[in-house]
Amino acid sequence: MQTKFTLLEIAAHIGAELHGDPSVVISSINTLGQASDGQITFLDNPRYRKYLPDTKASAVILTKNDQDACVTNVLITNNPYLAYAKIAALFDRKPKITAGIHPTAIIGEHCQIDPSASIGPYSVIGADVIIHAGVCVGAHCVVNEESVIGAHSRLWDNVKVYQHVIIGEHVIIHSGAVIGCDGFGNANEQGKWIKVPQLGGVRIGNEVEIGANTTIDRGALGDTIIEYGVRLDNQIQIAHNVQIGAHTAIAACTGIAGSTKVGKYCLIGGGVGISGHIEIADKVMITGMSGVTNSIKQAGIYSSTMPVMPQQEWWKALAYFRKIAEIVKKWRKLEKFIKNNSIESEK
Amino acid sequence: MQTKFTLLEIAAHIGAELHGDPSVVISSINTLGQASDGQITFLDNPRYRKYLPDTKASAVILTKNDQDACVTNVLITNNPYLAYAKIAALFDRKPKITAGIHPTAIIGEHCQIDPSASIGPYSVIGADVIIHAGVCVGAHCVVNEESVIGAHSRLWDNVKVYQHVIIGEHVIIHSGAVIGCDGFGNANEQGKWIKVPQLGGVRIGNEVEIGANTTIDRGALGDTIIEYGVRLDNQIQIAHNVQIGAHTAIAACTGIAGSTKVGKYCLIGGGVGISGHIEIADKVMITGMSGVTNSIKQAGIYSSTMPVMPQQEWWKALAYFRKIAEIVKKWRKLEKFIKNNSIESEK
Amino acid sequence: MQTKFTLLEIAAHIGAELHGDPSVVISSINTLGQASDGQITFLDNPRYRKYLPDTKASAVILTKNDQDACVTNVLITNNPYLAYAKIAALFDRKPKITAGIHPTAIIGEHCQIDPSASIGPYSVIGADVIIHAGVCVGAHCVVNEESVIGAHSRLWDNVKVYQHVIIGEHVIIHSGAVIGCDGFGNANEQGKWIKVPQLGGVRIGNEVEIGANTTIDRGALGDTIIEYGVRLDNQIQIAHNVQIGAHTAIAACTGIAGSTKVGKYCLIGGGVGISGHIEIADKVMITGMSGVTNSIKQAGIYSSTMPVMPQQEWWKALAYFRKIAEIVKKWRKLEKFIKNNSIESEK
Repeated sequence: MQTKFTLLEIAAHIGAELHGDPSVVISSINTLGQASDGQITFLDNPRYRKYLPDTKASAVILTKNDQDACVTNVLITNNPYLAYAKIAALFDRKPKITAGIHPTAIIGEHCQIDPSASIGPYSVIGADVIIHAGVCVGAHCVVNEESVIGAHSRLWDNVKVYQHVIIGEHVIIHSGAVIGCDGFGNANEQGKWIKVPQLGGVRIGNEVEIGANTTIDRGALGDTIIEYGVRLDNQIQIAHNVQIGAHTAIAACTGIAGSTKVGKYCLIGGGVGISGHIEIADKVMITGMSGVTNSIKQAGIYSSTMPVMPQQEWWKALAYFRKIAEIVKKWRKLEKFIKNNSIESEK
Repeated sequence: MQTKFTLLEIAAHIGAELHGDPSVVISSINTLGQASDGQITFLDNPRYRKYLPDTKASAVILTKNDQDACVTNVLITNNPYLAYAKIAALFDRKPKITAGIHPTAIIGEHCQIDPSASIGPYSVIGADVIIHAGVCVGAHCVVNEESVIGAHSRLWDNVKVYQHVIIGEHVIIHSGAVIGCDGFGNANEQGKWIKVPQLGGVRIGNEVEIGANTTIDRGALGDTIIEYGVRLDNQIQIAHNVQIGAHTAIAACTGIAGSTKVGKYCLIGGGVGISGHIEIADKVMITGMSGVTNSIKQAGIYSSTMPVMPQQEWWKALAYFRKIAEIVKKWRKLEKFIKNNSIESEK
Repeated sequence: MQTKFTLLEIAAHIGAELHGDPSVVISSINTLGQASDGQITFLDNPRYRKYLPDTKASAVILTKNDQDACVTNVLITNNPYLAYAKIAALFDRKPKITAGIHPTAIIGEHCQIDPSASIGPYSVIGADVIIHAGVCVGAHCVVNEESVIGAHSRLWDNVKVYQHVIIGEHVIIHSGAVIGCDGFGNANEQGKWIKVPQLGGVRIGNEVEIGANTTIDRGALGDTIIEYGVRLDNQIQIAHNVQIGAHTAIAACTGIAGSTKVGKYCLIGGGVGISGHIEIADKVMITGMSGVTNSIKQAGIYSSTMPVMPQQEWWKALAYFRKIAEIVKKWRKLEKFIKNNSIESEK
């Protein structure tokens, strides 16, 4: 892989307007505060603008507005963070992938595995699995019976895909993720739980990314569905028959209960809990650590994030909160008394 | 496996009263809204009753009360959800299990493995392990020294069982679960943490189900105990020396801190946090995303679930909440003033 | 491993003052309430002092203050919990480790693996990995390209280490942990997410312990850093470019968002959520289930732990909380009215 580029090559790659020396050689990328000679950097978050006048970087990607404050070569673009993403892809040093099935991989009967796919050591592929072109399955993966991995998708090491799971193209799944495990279905027979067999599957759209140790349950009846372009961070739990709309991004440690439907273009923070059997509209944003117990019908930002206070103050506030009903009752009595009284005195 | 049943066979299987054509052939199961010809469905949650008059299903399982609203064959039962669970078991298409030890599995010294058990590819069984009849251990599992897996239990792929863990019969454990890892024991020596070796084990009762990526710590001294029939969803954390009473069900992403004892027949929602060294009585229900910091001595429903509001409204409520102590103080001063005043004026 | 010790040997091991019979033989350790003949126990948490007069233990570790209440042999020390940790290490029965590379382990090119290290069955070591003396890598581990495992560290079974991760000495990592997976970096291009390649690494200091199924993302640019002596419990999520200061301990199920810097000697409870791009000072304690959205600049205890109430009471409190702005507004109007009125009446 090439590891050095001229500024001209980089400008062309991201479609940016170049001001400065096009022949400068860039060998890596770094933050505005830490970049040095030979490195390119970017200014996106305004809180880092203070580093701009003193940057040692060989080039800075920024918007037209910040151009004058910069003392080195610049690449002008409307979306510096996006430009950074594209340049970072040039310098990505991920391990190389070699096509072919590792001799220790175990392949079930009647599988269709494209010759351009790579199956890592000790991975176990069940019967009737289809693995398309350019797929990379890491070490210690399992893909169970009748599942499908779409072209150019990557399963990192130790991804477990249960049976009858359909994964799209250009999907990335990180280590420890489990796709298609049983949903939490339990019927009660005189106090004892009877397992409800989970007969559905999971369908994951193209260009989805799924974080490490995230779990996605198979449907009870019908499928759990993750639509096109969704981004799931680490340690997310998606219960059976949930549907996540296209282009929605969900941060780590969030859990979504069964049969809930999340809209498209939603942004859901980390540590959020969403109840089952509800619907969340498109373009809803939920701040971290919030609880969602009812359907949200309108786009917008919603929150129940409770930030910390010094413990003594928190305990005081909490104590009043816990007797707020009583306090308001007293207050209303007083209000009534005053109103009666002042009416009296006006008489 | 048989994949078609007459309605008569199904009625007999669940002990339901059949009204309609007993010879109708049922080949699968589906939801009330989506079921079509040849499918059976059920009505349990009243919010789906609206689909009953127009269902295309060949048969519906329901209670006597809903019978008249149904236009097709019916099976009458007191608990349609339970009946559905039992019928779903008929149509379950889980991968077949073959008895025997896969040639790539590594078996330690002095193990006792029943010939009817199945040990999957690349699984590693430590010394002195006992695996009983009908057990299925998937691929990439580890069962460490002196652990025991009871009859007919199933470890899906990639379940990790540390040493000295006793698992009962008919237990199901999903991928990525870790049983018997060290509890979080740290003694402090002049600011530096010293590890407290975790010398206990884990005991898991019969008919327990444990979800994907759930972790159960071994005891520090004595065992962590999961009693008969408990249901644990995905990504639950059970700390050292916790005890979970029989028939309790816990939803995903809940964490229980060390030495806490949860009663029998409890229902604990998702994303709940429970402090260490407390006791929760039998038949306690905790709603999702709640925090439990003290023992609960009475059966009942408990909650601190904080649902989202539109962000502007939330911020306003939060601002008042954070100064609630000050507001109440002012209010009490006013109350005093009024009382004094009105006493004055009465004089 | 020796499994019996005289009380004299134990006293010498922990540097305690022995009162009683030094030749008593101790074969195991147990809790104060359950210890019997031949066992040693300890008194640390005052709530267990009630068991002291009736203990059946052969010896008790305690502080000078509790000496008189004890009826058996005693070992006196300032920190009984620490002494217990050290004695527990004597009785630890963890599986034995044998040096050497298991014949089924796959080792990449140009690795340096110390002959005293142990590499477990089916583990996969990438190219250019360095594994130092006394390291134990369990079964089914992956250590990817150019990563380093410091001397005497232990990876339990199924630990996944991505490329370019540097792990210190005497580190313990439990099953299912994933170190160095991609951070959650997504740039937006007209509604569609573009992956931001994560070019940094992870550096883990000496004597760190990492719990089961915990995930630590690699840096976007620069490294994610876990400093010396940090303790991470199970199912913790550490996002890209987070830095955790030395000797900080974090309980299970806590998530820390990107680029946040946590100080030294912090104690962070379970189920806590910490926002990205903030700083937390040294010696901060956060109680369980709290949310931290802003930097904390002062040592101290902080909380937003919301404990459960009986559901009816909670709903009532919640209802008032949700209209608290309106209530306070009314109250202030009343206050104004009264003030005006009483001024009036004073005229």
